[in-house]
Amino acid sequence: MSALSFDAACPALFQDYERVMLGHGSGGRLSHELLARVILPALGRDPEEALEDQATLPAVEGRLAITTDAFVIQPLFFPGGDIGSLAVHGTINDLAVGGARPLYITAALILEEGLPLAVLSRVVRSMKRACDEAGVVLVAGDTKVVERGKADGMYVATTGVGSVEDGALLSVTSALQGDRVIVSGTLGDHGIAVLAQREGIELQTELVSDSAPLTTLVRAMLQASPNGIRCMRDPTRGGASSALNEIATASGVGIALDEARIPVRDAVVGACELLGFDPLYVANEGKLIAIVAPQDAARVLDAMRAHPLGRDASALGEVVSEHPGSVVLRSRLGGTRTVAMLSGDQLPRIC
Amino acid sequence: MSALSFDAACPALFQDYERVMLGHGSGGRLSHELLARVILPALGRDPEEALEDQATLPAVEGRLAITTDAFVIQPLFFPGGDIGSLAVHGTINDLAVGGARPLYITAALILEEGLPLAVLSRVVRSMKRACDEAGVVLVAGDTKVVERGKADGMYVATTGVGSVEDGALLSVTSALQGDRVIVSGTLGDHGIAVLAQREGIELQTELVSDSAPLTTLVRAMLQASPNGIRCMRDPTRGGASSALNEIATASGVGIALDEARIPVRDAVVGACELLGFDPLYVANEGKLIAIVAPQDAARVLDAMRAHPLGRDASALGEVVSEHPGSVVLRSRLGGTRTVAMLSGDQLPRIC
Repeated sequence: MSALSFDAACPALFQDYERVMLGHGSGGRLSHELLARVILPALGRDPEEALEDQATLPAVEGRLAITTDAFVIQPLFFPGGDIGSLAVHGTINDLAVGGARPLYITAALILEEGLPLAVLSRVVRSMKRACDEAGVVLVAGDTKVVERGKADGMYVATTGVGSVEDGALLSVTSALQGDRVIVSGTLGDHGIAVLAQREGIELQTELVSDSAPLTTLVRAMLQASPNGIRCMRDPTRGGASSALNEIATASGVGIALDEARIPVRDAVVGACELLGFDPLYVANEGKLIAIVAPQDAARVLDAMRAHPLGRDASALGEVVSEHPGSVVLRSRLGGTRTVAMLSGDQLPRIC
Repeated sequence: MSALSFDAACPALFQDYERVMLGHGSGGRLSHELLARVILPALGRDPEEALEDQATLPAVEGRLAITTDAFVIQPLFFPGGDIGSLAVHGTINDLAVGGARPLYITAALILEEGLPLAVLSRVVRSMKRACDEAGVVLVAGDTKVVERGKADGMYVATTGVGSVEDGALLSVTSALQGDRVIVSGTLGDHGIAVLAQREGIELQTELVSDSAPLTTLVRAMLQASPNGIRCMRDPTRGGASSALNEIATASGVGIALDEARIPVRDAVVGACELLGFDPLYVANEGKLIAIVAPQDAARVLDAMRAHPLGRDASALGEVVSEHPGSVVLRSRLGGTRTVAMLSGDQLPRIC
């Protein structure tokens, strides 16, 4: 069952032989057909609507937040998501962990000649569903086509625009000694789920990507502690180790982690042991790490655990004055080791 | 002299053997090195600065305008520009022709493993220069790396955010019978310049892409006629024919063009005759088409011709009540023919 040869949710819309052609990227008649037949219907919009070169939207209250991401994940479909939902979640989450309320998203698609239209439709419908769930609106898009053999089916670049209410001022530079390090749930689910799908590795138990929008979790946390959260990061590429090292470096502090408190699923532990990976370096797409003032940590943890995406939240470490710029792990056996930033690339193309 | 093997402007920064590796997209140490050594210096920013997951910016006055584009042009460097300047101009121009003032831009880069760092640096410096010239700020970026053979050196996706002042309400649906059709200059320069470079075609005279930011030209036009400009379009992919057909369809009007008034350079005429192309279908990256109320047409033309990017502006046609939804050309010899939307793809990968 190849990811590129079926469309379970909507089998009748396109014939098997209908595929993306170079002319679909021409800006001419075929480009309009692709929009009218595939993309606008998948977005639930009128195929006849007049499209301007830009979206004009109401004024935004408060400061503006902007982020962008490219997605080149292989395979396009994986347990728990696909390149479409991932591209929406990834960009929304970058806004959310910065304290912004995501409002709008744009999508630029780079399609490989020969991609089945059914696959394109499925990905765009998945983007639309992810946008609806997160309460953001897809307001602008673009489609280009490159020759067979390039672009692995498709690449997606999304940009998110949000608003920042006054008050929320989160920054990776503001971690202070004594702050608690909190993670919202198990680490490594996304990277291992994608790798297992791609390489055909059988896991002991079923594992799905954690790809999800963090918007409402962040809101619950900021309500529980309007002033005690110093910063948040979503530990995607590079995993928790990169996010924590960035915070340690930017704030000029040390971070000490307690291995016993790092939540990791058995399937991820097993796969990491088999493959020689460390869950701290594996990507997540629906998790966040928060640095929280000590007096607010319990309140924030309670709010997280009351949210479906924060049930396994754990206070797994502390900000310390020793070893500024470094992250250190206290192992279950009592030893300590430095958790350096990922060097090389242990899991390419997982986002 | 391959476009991928030299960096004339800055030969000493990188060694010939320094190339993009998969690990540069890992989110770990190598990603940080790429940012600190190549991308941030090319943007003229502090390599040591702490990078957040998003840019937080001041509140924007007025309504918000958003647009996005992917760029997959081959070759990466061409007479008059490169994929970096083109990605900035293309996105800025979509905002400008909609009546918005471009403020911010984001860039997502998809790099091919093996791309020389010198090439990446040159493209990013070109983006920065194009942003500075147009008065927009590059506020967020992302870099992914795909395996050799997958991305033709690099693809770029840009998103532009601008503000729309009250008053400016341009729409492709608002062309009215009697309106004049004005083009800001010669047609086809970009598409033919890129094609000639790619295919090694020698032109009679030197031809460079018209890639340029239309921001100040649009502002001069709106000052000359605050209420008489119905809509503008930049005739990129699909050429003038696609832009005009879109306006005719969206407004439910006919458009009649006068062949003798279409400005085209001799080099473009020659290349089009040789290759069997029609300049009305060839892409432009620094031109606009405006639909203007008849009483304001002369004033708008004067304002355009006083601007460096509008010197060859020409009123080349009229909006008519006949043949709604169609564009018709009156030839030099007195005959007429329909200018349909581009079918197929006569010039792939020119943006």
